Parts: sequence; structure tokens; C-alpha cells
Amino acid sequence: MADTSGGETRPKGTLIIIGGHEDRDPKGDRTILREFARRAKGGKIVLATVASHRPEGYFEEYEAAFADLEIGELIELYVEERSQASDREKLDVLDDAAAIFFSGGDQLRITSQIGDTSIEDKVRRLYERGGVVAGTSAGASVMSETMLVKGTSKETHRIGDLHMAPGMGLVHNVIIDQHFAERGRMGRLLGAVAHNPRVLGIGIDEDTAAVLEGDEFQVIGSGGVYVVDGSHVSYCNVAEARADCALSMHDVKVHVLSSGDCFNLKTRTPRRPG
Amino acid sequence: MADTSGGETRPKGTLIIIGGHEDRDPKGDRTILREFARRAKGGKIVLATVASHRPEGYFEEYEAAFADLEIGELIELYVEERSQASDREKLDVLDDAAAIFFSGGDQLRITSQIGDTSIEDKVRRLYERGGVVAGTSAGASVMSETMLVKGTSKETHRIGDLHMAPGMGLVHNVIIDQHFAERGRMGRLLGAVAHNPRVLGIGIDEDTAAVLEGDEFQVIGSGGVYVVDGSHVSYCNVAEARADCALSMHDVKVHVLSSGDCFNLKTRTPRRPG
Repeated sequence: MADTSGGETRPKGTLIIIGGHEDRDPKGDRTILREFARRAKGGKIVLATVASHRPEGYFEEYEAAFADLEIGELIELYVEERSQASDREKLDVLDDAAAIFFSGGDQLRITSQIGDTSIEDKVRRLYERGGVVAGTSAGASVMSETMLVKGTSKETHRIGDLHMAPGMGLVHNVIIDQHFAERGRMGRLLGAVAHNPRVLGIGIDEDTAAVLEGDEFQVIGSGGVYVVDGSHVSYCNVAEARADCALSMHDVKVHVLSSGDCFNLKTRTPRRPG
Repeated sequence: MADTSGGETRPKGTLIIIGGHEDRDPKGDRTILREFARRAKGGKIVLATVASHRPEGYFEEYEAAFADLEIGELIELYVEERSQASDREKLDVLDDAAAIFFSGGDQLRITSQIGDTSIEDKVRRLYERGGVVAGTSAGASVMSETMLVKGTSKETHRIGDLHMAPGMGLVHNVIIDQHFAERGRMGRLLGAVAHNPRVLGIGIDEDTAAVLEGDEFQVIGSGGVYVVDGSHVSYCNVAEARADCALSMHDVKVHVLSSGDCFNLKTRTPRRPG
């Protein structure tokens, strides 16, 4: 049952938001998958490959990666077309699941196929009742209220060159980007935050994850998590500049977090435990 | 004559610090080269191709780019080996120059070939007496006291994976990186600043320049200039973490500047003119 104090439904579960390319080598450390498996506590895991146009091979890869990590049943959930998102058989899969893992692909495929369907509703309930919802790459992006869909990497953000869309909204007031340092995406995340500093920008590197419980996440994995806080921005040109102009944004706060670091989304402050 | 008030020699000249790949197309806008030419006021321009192991072609390319920009004499200065850096003939070139332009290549070639030689001395004097010193890419990096030599792009900075070296020191208390957003270098610039927040990190995009006079620079060109200010950093792991660990650095201030924006290096504040 969700905690509804404060007028909002407060989920009891955990989000594991992964920047893509998490270690899946059966001989590797698999820090992130190991943490996911530990939190699933031997319960049923659903691997949602919805983000992919061609999900073939994903299930086998994750099955091999999880093989010695003491997980329970692992079941694939794929939705070829939106109409299948209300199939009884597909919905039943989620009823007694302990955890769901969204693999990578195209975030718009996830939201356009399952957004506002019973499947999405069941994912939300799983999270609210204390389950684990993990997502990597596209699966990470969809977790926020508004998600980044397209925007040039490796370039300072050009006003007008950024496409956003409504995400699943499992976590509020943030916008998530993935493959972050690897694809040089600081420019576009700054651009996204510039549009509305209400949202905190969270950029997650490959093989790195933010594990969110309540208002606080902790970083695990080998890379960094960047937090872009625009609350004290003193000047920004997004509303007035021409579409091909480069972004101008003064007084942004940035945190670079690595394994072990914690960050509170409500107070917008980092913390080093211990 | 340099202004020596405050105990320090205060250069009267201008630095034009370019992030590489400035528009050189004779049919293009050439915003940066045009500004350089304007400031050279028809005086002699020295094109220093020292950074390159094979400078062939550079001179012809810049000659064509400057052709209709009303410049005076354009002369190439190349130093094959350090011993040539005291050749009378090479030194004479600089005596009555109004401006010098360092083209790209390897910053270590510039400093190892002309560092602490009479050529470097003459460049410094040119700047002190009111001349223009421009540099693109490697030519930009060498302007700072300490310069970035090597460090992985497209990755969150790993403690230990960054090589710095003494630069020409025309501008103090900053560290400059170039090809900035294009090569995803935010990680390594943050890493450099983490080593000592005394230095301000300045990351310059391609076809973009910081034009510095006195304590203030103004941005020109099509991209962005990022300023990383570590003065309020509350936690950083560079001194204690293992070499393969990712950087952790809390409470960094970042400014994204675009064409027209000004920044004061002394007060560390951005300004939007007008």
C-alpha cells in the first residue's frame, strides 16, 4: 500500500536508473545487476524489452548475466503493438512480480506502446507497493515526468534543438539523460534544465546507476552521475534567442557524484556517507 | 610599456583564445579571424605554426582565409628544433609585429620548442605592449599557466588520468580546454579544476573564442564557452581515491556563455552586456 502522507502517493519501492551499458559479462563484477538481483530478493523478475524494435537476443543476454546471481523466475515482457498492452496474459505476468527491468532501445517506443495502458498502471503499482523498477538507457529516460527524446550530443545546446516528451513519471521534478559523459551530453542536459529549472537534470554515465528510495538516491557502478541544478540561474537565453543560437546560462550548480555518493532530490544536496 | 601597478606586470594587449576549427572558409563569416584582423589594425601578423609537426599547408590556408580581411603583412614562424628558437632571423620577425596567431597541433611542441627561449620572451612582450596574441586548439591551451596535455574525453574523469604541464602563462589562474563540447571534455575539465580550485576551468567550443582584455573576456563565435568555478566545492575525492575511481566533486559552479557574454576572471562573474 502506498504511503499517501503529504497528499501525494509516496511509493515504497526502489528505482534503479542505469546510464546504459551496465556490465552484463557473466564473468564480470556486474555491480548493478547484482544490486538489482539482491533487491529482488529471489522474487519474480520481468524483463521488459518494449523499448526495442527487435528484442531478439536481449532475454538470452540478461538470462546469462543473471545466471549465478540467485534470482527467481525471469520472464520476458514484450509488446509488439499497443493493442497487446491490455492482453490478459501479458498483464498477469506483472501481478506477482518483485521487480521489472526495462532494457534499452527507444524511449518513445516504451511510452507510445504502454503509456496510459494497464501495463503502465501495473508497473506504477509495483513501484508503489515496494517493488523494484530498473531501467537502462531508454529504460532510464522514461522514468522521469518529462524525458529527453532527441538532442544533439557533442555540442553546446542550440536553442530549439531539443525534443522532449512526457515520460512515465515515476520520479518527479527531474529529467534524466544517459550514456552521459560517453556521448558528451552535458550541453543538452544543461539545455533541458534551462527550459525550466524546476526540473533537476540528472546525467548518468554508462555502467553507472542511481538507486532511488524515497527522496534520496545513491550512486553505484564505475562512472559518474551529474546533477545539474538550475535553481540559482541568474540569466538564460532560451526564451529570446534564435533557434540556431548557442545556450547562455549563468550560475548553474553542478554536482559530480561517484560510487557511494548520495543525493537528496528534495533538498537538492549531495552527501558522502560515512 | 606594461602597467606594473599592484606589483604585477599588467599586459595591455589582447588574447584571443580559440577552441579550434574556427571558420576559415574564404566565403564564410570568419567571425573570429575577422575580429583578430580588426584588432591587428593592418599591422604585421606572425602565423606561428610551431605546434605542428608538419606545418605544410597551414600558412596557405590562413593566407586565403585572411585575404580580404584587410590585414598587413602575414609571415610564418616555424621552429623545427629548439636550437632554432634563438635564430636572429626568426626573432627579428617578432620585433615589429602587431599580432601573433598560434595555429593548432600539439601544445607540448609549442612549450618544449619555445618555452623559456627568446621567442617566448618576445611573444610575452608583444602582449605586454598592447599587441594581440591569438591561439587556436593547442595554441589556446598553451596560454594558461598550467595546461591540459592529455586526458580522456567522453568519460567522467578518472582520478589519475590527466596529464598537465606548464604552459606559457600568459593568463593566470585558469586552465583552458578546447574542442570542448564537440569532444565531450566536461569530465576532464572538472577533473583538472578538482586538483586545485584556485584555477578556473575554461572550456571553449570549436569556432568559438574568448577575447580577453584586462580581467574580462567576451565570447565571440558560434558555440559556447564553459566556465567551471570550483571555489565553493564542498567535497572532492581527488586526493584520496584510487586512480581508477571516478571523480566526485560536490557544489561546482558552472557558467555556459555564448556570443556576447562577458566574464570577469578576477571577480569570477558573468555579465550580459546591454
